[in-house]
Amino acid sequence: MITRNQVKRINRLKTRKRRDEGVFLVEGVRLVEELLDSELQVELAVVAPSLVRVERGAQLAKTIRDSGMQLAEVTDSELSELADTETPQGVLAIAREPSWELANLQPGDRTAMLVYDRLTDPGNLGTLMRTAHALGVDWCVALPGSVDPWSPKAVRASAGSVFHVPVSREPWPEVMNWLRERDFTIFCADPGGEPVTRGVVRGEGFALVLGNEPSGLSEEVRNACDARIGIHLSGKMDSLNVATAGALLLDRLIGDPDRS
Amino acid sequence: MITRNQVKRINRLKTRKRRDEGVFLVEGVRLVEELLDSELQVELAVVAPSLVRVERGAQLAKTIRDSGMQLAEVTDSELSELADTETPQGVLAIAREPSWELANLQPGDRTAMLVYDRLTDPGNLGTLMRTAHALGVDWCVALPGSVDPWSPKAVRASAGSVFHVPVSREPWPEVMNWLRERDFTIFCADPGGEPVTRGVVRGEGFALVLGNEPSGLSEEVRNACDARIGIHLSGKMDSLNVATAGALLLDRLIGDPDRS
Repeated sequence: MITRNQVKRINRLKTRKRRDEGVFLVEGVRLVEELLDSELQVELAVVAPSLVRVERGAQLAKTIRDSGMQLAEVTDSELSELADTETPQGVLAIAREPSWELANLQPGDRTAMLVYDRLTDPGNLGTLMRTAHALGVDWCVALPGSVDPWSPKAVRASAGSVFHVPVSREPWPEVMNWLRERDFTIFCADPGGEPVTRGVVRGEGFALVLGNEPSGLSEEVRNACDARIGIHLSGKMDSLNVATAGALLLDRLIGDPDRS
Repeated sequence: MITRNQVKRINRLKTRKRRDEGVFLVEGVRLVEELLDSELQVELAVVAPSLVRVERGAQLAKTIRDSGMQLAEVTDSELSELADTETPQGVLAIAREPSWELANLQPGDRTAMLVYDRLTDPGNLGTLMRTAHALGVDWCVALPGSVDPWSPKAVRASAGSVFHVPVSREPWPEVMNWLRERDFTIFCADPGGEPVTRGVVRGEGFALVLGNEPSGLSEEVRNACDARIGIHLSGKMDSLNVATAGALLLDRLIGDPDRS
């Protein structure tokens, strides 16, 4: 059984209104598994009979039941109505948005940060969160004007990485001060920027700022850059998708022990 | 004026039926500009008054008129009805699908090829076409089971790169024979593969095969691989988006003169 209030609440989460409540919606087996595997607080799980029809779903249903979290059981058609996606796989959850603040980050050597300057496409932002997670980025910041990292599309594109890699939403002056006080190098992605050479990042930490597609970086960010960096394009296309450009720059900045 | 037949034809192009006709739909100023800048044949341009309201659009309208191509003029609301996107920016076009075949490729030194093995997401395939174009890949192949490179979503994600980088649709045995006969190295992307070291590709050409997300490479492709390669992930996420993984592997395989 699901209450009328729970249904209303889930429906609100599919619109921008949910920002007022500090919670967001997670759908599907893989994403809910990732959510339960994170430190985020789950407020409600909603489960339908189709979940237990595959082994992996049955395992997830057991985990949900054993956890003692609040649980609503609905029919498959009720779940389809509640879901934002077409195939919710018999499960969705409401989770509390974490309140990450840069002030809480204790930087170590070679701390890597990714900053989104008015990134408006949720698919690109989510894909970048997934890349950040895979490449070992420590922190992400979504500057004002960027898409909500907890929107359903961004969460899906991140494959659950938004549950694990901290992403805070703070204005540039605060972020810049934080970076300056700790001697971080501020790199800005720019199609006309200098190609990155491995080893450019030494002891200290760094932040890589990615701008809006197609309008680029905002003036205040551009002015604060220590270096504008880009990918040397040997082909005829003059730009890369922002999630691709961000991945290539991060890979080169972070480097790894396997590269010659 | 637009004829009833032209309207019917455009509406068919928004569905899978258009495959029968060998033509596809292109929408928006930037994409139509890219189309006119390519060697592809344009069958019909459709223009509405809103196109000329911005300087860049007015320039495009002039180019279309001067070219002597078949042109239909419609109202803005008629164009919105015809378009697949919400903001067609006053212009769309029907173009003839090029008939690229691997048999026509004359490989040179360090020829780079990208092969899609059952890639089903049009956004990922389009993003990979854009990356291939930017990094100087010479040829792409979409194996059976892959999404149509000329679908509206793939064309949009490619930012027009599908008009420039050849992409053929051929079965694996033919592709493999072509590669073997020319001593190409066949690399397969695999999350558990060996990290790529720069310089691994020397004189000869290579093909990088990307598999389905999440099921991976098909058996026949996997068996033909010379090497399985992957990205060493320092973070906690066990996989990357396929368009991101493809970009990182290509960047490392192709290398560039700016890297140390």
